[in-house]
Amino acid sequence: MLRFHHIVRVSLFASKASTFPLTSLSLSTSIPKRTTFALRSQMTSFSSSSSSSSSKLLFRQLFEKESSTYTYLLADASHPDKPALLIDPVDRTVDRDLSLIQELGLKLVYAMNTHVHADHVTGTGLIKSKVPGVKSIISKASGATADLFVEPGDKVHFGDLFLEVRATPGHTLGCVTYVTGDASDQPQPRMAFTGDALLIRGCGRTDFQGGSSEQLYKSVYSQIFTLPKDTFIYPAHDYKGFSVSTVGEEMQYNPRLTKDEETFKNIMANLNLSYPKMIDVAVPANLVCGVQSKVIMNS
Amino acid sequence: MLRFHHIVRVSLFASKASTFPLTSLSLSTSIPKRTTFALRSQMTSFSSSSSSSSSKLLFRQLFEKESSTYTYLLADASHPDKPALLIDPVDRTVDRDLSLIQELGLKLVYAMNTHVHADHVTGTGLIKSKVPGVKSIISKASGATADLFVEPGDKVHFGDLFLEVRATPGHTLGCVTYVTGDASDQPQPRMAFTGDALLIRGCGRTDFQGGSSEQLYKSVYSQIFTLPKDTFIYPAHDYKGFSVSTVGEEMQYNPRLTKDEETFKNIMANLNLSYPKMIDVAVPANLVCGVQSKVIMNS
Repeated sequence: MLRFHHIVRVSLFASKASTFPLTSLSLSTSIPKRTTFALRSQMTSFSSSSSSSSSKLLFRQLFEKESSTYTYLLADASHPDKPALLIDPVDRTVDRDLSLIQELGLKLVYAMNTHVHADHVTGTGLIKSKVPGVKSIISKASGATADLFVEPGDKVHFGDLFLEVRATPGHTLGCVTYVTGDASDQPQPRMAFTGDALLIRGCGRTDFQGGSSEQLYKSVYSQIFTLPKDTFIYPAHDYKGFSVSTVGEEMQYNPRLTKDEETFKNIMANLNLSYPKMIDVAVPANLVCGVQSKVIMNS
Repeated sequence: MLRFHHIVRVSLFASKASTFPLTSLSLSTSIPKRTTFALRSQMTSFSSSSSSSSSKLLFRQLFEKESSTYTYLLADASHPDKPALLIDPVDRTVDRDLSLIQELGLKLVYAMNTHVHADHVTGTGLIKSKVPGVKSIISKASGATADLFVEPGDKVHFGDLFLEVRATPGHTLGCVTYVTGDASDQPQPRMAFTGDALLIRGCGRTDFQGGSSEQLYKSVYSQIFTLPKDTFIYPAHDYKGFSVSTVGEEMQYNPRLTKDEETFKNIMANLNLSYPKMIDVAVPANLVCGVQSKVIMNS
């Protein structure tokens, strides 16, 4: 299992020093370079909870019907600034998401993607145009444009909470899974935002964007199925109305990934899926974090 | 606020005495009659949690896309029998729900409705035909057929957990809200399954099925907005991709229910909604807990 904890601290944006104390860029020269997005501020009391919905983590699962995409809102509600992040926002639902964030009194700091989506346009660019200071995040391996790139082992901090980055390629070459922190002051059970790598009782297709069924199988087994069995699985999509699963459930009941690797590869090679209808629009847009982002960047 | 705690114990179904000890019907003559569905068995240890997703409560939110209906699965996962209930199951997704229940090793004991739905056919009857022993539950005020009728103040026990019944008429005459128990050994924050009485940033229409905007306003203010502000709101529907809200959020941001009563009544009188397309099919079916139930009852 690839996990690196070397740290490079980077300033994210100018903010109140008391909240986000790191206001100057300081890149270490440690190799391999790994980035901790250090929104860590003064420690507040945190009672370890037996649940992911701890008193500290504010969590919302949001659904976009047309592409059946889940967007996730996470915030450190106990932190004075209530720093928040969105995972896999969709362009069509950006106004809904930002309205909710405003109502909840949160400060959106990151708009993150698990990968370059082929089925919808990311809301990242639009969010950046509407909320100055928000930074986009995607994996370095994705080849996409973003403000910040993550690599395996990186940690994305928001307040006193953080997400780990795990490389889970196979649906695309640059897919990552974001997992809540492995520490006593982080939500328990843990939560894994798996993108299209692992879906509830399914997985993403592997026939485009550098996809590889062999790689996906290895990713899921080495990076997701090694998590505690009670870890919640929050995928980027669901088409049957499921909202959440667990590592234990998928290890036992996923109709594809419970098979051996050869059988899995055969299943994936014979899905006979139609050409993704949005891919020619979505992928070019998402490579620049949504079309709106490109306009902004060029302006 | 109407809350009664008089108790009538009724047997629900033959089961292992160690688990469901009440196997004989014993109706008290106390008036007003109130029912406790006493699936309470031997107490197991229960660590009070700071979250609704306690280690004991297994909770799943399930979505039916066509009618945008949420079905809720709740189970006492710490109980040896893992007794479970479904709130507002939909006929089209019964197989999905039962498959999940089987995979999770749960024992489904109740299929409950918050009210007689007009926009989809309940899955209750179909569930009863597929899982012998499951009892249907609806409010007495609904006028519908069911195995068990609940009234305000009743408690529906499943293992060591329970739901309170609160009368929240206005969308229909017989609407109830099911609320997780107010006790130290029950999930915290509490969870309110509001049906169509209170939706996220909205509410159900009041122009059919004995609906009354005046009554709905009073229901929400007396029965839901009196709950702790961190109580989670889980509605029967959402059309914008929201999955959950809180009492505090709706008290502050619900565009209809933050208004005074007269304004609310004016809003509801001028919605100009079209005739509910499913009402002529769904309501007659749901009055007998789904068409399948009627067939069974007549057979």
